[in-house]
Formats: sequence, C-alpha cells, structure tokens
Amino acid sequence: MKKIILIGASGKIGQAALSGLEHHEVVTASYSGRGCDYQVDIGSEASIKQLFESVGSFDAVANTVGLCEYADFVDMSENQWMTTILSKMMGQINLVRIGQKYINDGGSFSLITGILSSKAIPMAIADATTSGAIDTFVKCVAYELPRGIRINSINPTVIEEAWDVYGEMMSGFHPVPGLMVGKAFARSVDGFITGEVITVDA
Amino acid sequence: MKKIILIGASGKIGQAALSGLEHHEVVTASYSGRGCDYQVDIGSEASIKQLFESVGSFDAVANTVGLCEYADFVDMSENQWMTTILSKMMGQINLVRIGQKYINDGGSFSLITGILSSKAIPMAIADATTSGAIDTFVKCVAYELPRGIRINSINPTVIEEAWDVYGEMMSGFHPVPGLMVGKAFARSVDGFITGEVITVDA
Repeated sequence: MKKIILIGASGKIGQAALSGLEHHEVVTASYSGRGCDYQVDIGSEASIKQLFESVGSFDAVANTVGLCEYADFVDMSENQWMTTILSKMMGQINLVRIGQKYINDGGSFSLITGILSSKAIPMAIADATTSGAIDTFVKCVAYELPRGIRINSINPTVIEEAWDVYGEMMSGFHPVPGLMVGKAFARSVDGFITGEVITVDA
Repeated sequence: MKKIILIGASGKIGQAALSGLEHHEVVTASYSGRGCDYQVDIGSEASIKQLFESVGSFDAVANTVGLCEYADFVDMSENQWMTTILSKMMGQINLVRIGQKYINDGGSFSLITGILSSKAIPMAIADATTSGAIDTFVKCVAYELPRGIRINSINPTVIEEAWDVYGEMMSGFHPVPGLMVGKAFARSVDGFITGEVITVDA
C-alpha cells in the first residue's frame, strides 16, 4: 500500500488513472480543488511546493493534467505556445524537479503525454510537441533521479469515456477503455520500470 | 541555386552546415553578427521578424543555434530550464512560425537538435528534452506547412571539429567529420523529404 498523489483526479484521464490505483491510498488534487483533497496549479512552482509540503510523506505522484492550446500551426501565437509549454511541459518537469526533494525513497513519478505526438492530427501541434518533450525527458532523466526514484510517462490514445468530446477531431482513432490507462498507471507505480514511455493504444 | 539563410554561421556546426551548402547563395546570420551578413537573436520574435524583412526573398532557413544550459537535473533551476526552452525550442519554433510567412513557395526549414536526446549523458537533460521537442515538432508540423514548404531536423552527434571542447564529457561517443553534418543539411535543403529527423552518428 503506497500513498499516491493523483493530480487531475476529477478529469476523465484522472478517473481512468484512479481506476488502476484504488488498491493504494490515493490523495487527490486538481486545479479547482473541487471534490479533491488538495488544490494545485502545476503551472506554478509555489503551488507545487505548497502541495508537497501539505501532503507530507508520499510514495508516488501520478499526474494526469497539462493545459494545451489547440490551433492550426499557422494561426498559433507565441502566447498559445507558451501557455502549453508552461503547463504540460515545464509544469510536469517542475513536479519532478520539486517533487524529488519530497518523495520517499524508491518513489515514482508517472507523467502524462499523448498519442498525438506520434499520430499527428490538425490543431494539435503544441500538444504533440510538448508530449514529445516529456517522453524524451522521462527517458533521459531516469538515470539522474536519486534514492531509487523512478519515472515513466503514460502516452494514451483517446479513452472511450472522452470519445463524445474528441471523437469528431480524431477520425481513424479507436478509443480504449479508461481502465487500460488505469492499468498503465498501475504498471508505472507498482512495477520496477523506469525511463519508459508506456503507450496505450488500440 | 537557392538563397539560404544560415543562422549561427560562425559556430562549429554552422561551419559544418556551410560546407554542405556552398553550391547555393548563402546569407549568414548570428547572435553577435560578427563576420556575418546579419545579426539575429532567435530568442526574440522581433529580431527574427527583422531578419526576414531585411533579407527579403529566400528559399531556405538552416538553423544551427540554440542556447542550452547544462547542469545536473537535481540542481537545475526553473530559470535554466526556461533559458533553454526559450532559445533552442521556442526560438526554433518561432523561426518556422514567423518564417513561413516570408519564405518562398517550395522553401525549406532545417532545424538543429542533437544526439543527447537518444543517448543520455550527465548535465544534458535540458538539451535532450528540447531536442526531443523539436524532433517531434518537425515530424508533426510537416503536414501543416502551406505552399510546398518543407521542414526537417538535423540530429547530429559531436563533430570532430568540436571534440576538444566536448570530448571529455562525451566518453564513448565517436565524433563524425563536420562535412557529414553539412551533407545532412544539404539533403534537407536539396531533397524532397519533409517531416524527417536526419540523424548523423558514427
């Protein structure tokens, strides 16, 4: 039984992750904090630090959030790029950068990326680029983490529970049950693997 | 004969790129501007815009620069991350984002990444992560560029001409002659490929 901080617990991917982690003690957090144990904005160093100090001892961080702007590349502003970079990329890096000081020996970080980094679709260039950044980050930083701390990313396709929202823009993709994303988070948290990108696709 | 803007022309990778592009009309630019036709800071939108407006008509952009901070992950500050992200990642994205409005029909962008994204070494996590971002960006954005514009990234190992500087931190790597990097830039500029990561390794 591990103590896990699940960020984005109220979202659809958060609920999917939760389905695979319920055999642990899960502490929940989200941007709004509604229905969760804690409030956190991963775009803010101070907010991340505050979260870890409030929770105290923990064994794992499972992150399921990262704000992305969606637009055609030719129309996308530097501001839209930076919003995505500061949340989905720098925000997740900061979770690890700050969290590695607080997490228990042998703990783990599970970050979220997404299938659009390998299966490009219109409007998703910032999502894809920052996913590629985090997948590369995970593969390389695994060697540097101290005290047996592990790190992996979960790179899923769209889940059935979100198909009504994303289905139209994702023609030719086949959704997977959210529980498969839950299994991926469980494999990252409960296994010994590190530096891996766990792809979940149909 | 194409008109190519070579950014970072005075650096070692810039000289290597130049060796493969000399059959074209090459206009040179660098951060200091010393010995080059133009001065440009790829970390600044305004400076990039200024460059393209000054040059006028051109067929290709070959970029060989991107500022990276090197440190152990556990010691690296958010500022060090952001310096790297704003130059090597956002700077290169901005070259394409802004440049696609100015470049001739059928033009090309050749960006620079690096081998440390797939062969991790100490101190290089920000370099590796932003290289992974740009390699993914190139693969996905190729589908979106209008008017037959192409894009590739050159992902080289260390070159012989820079081995005296990097050799010590790159034990187990084998340097390649800079002319091989020049050939990679030539293949990107002169070929019909797009969305490719051109790896140059021993």
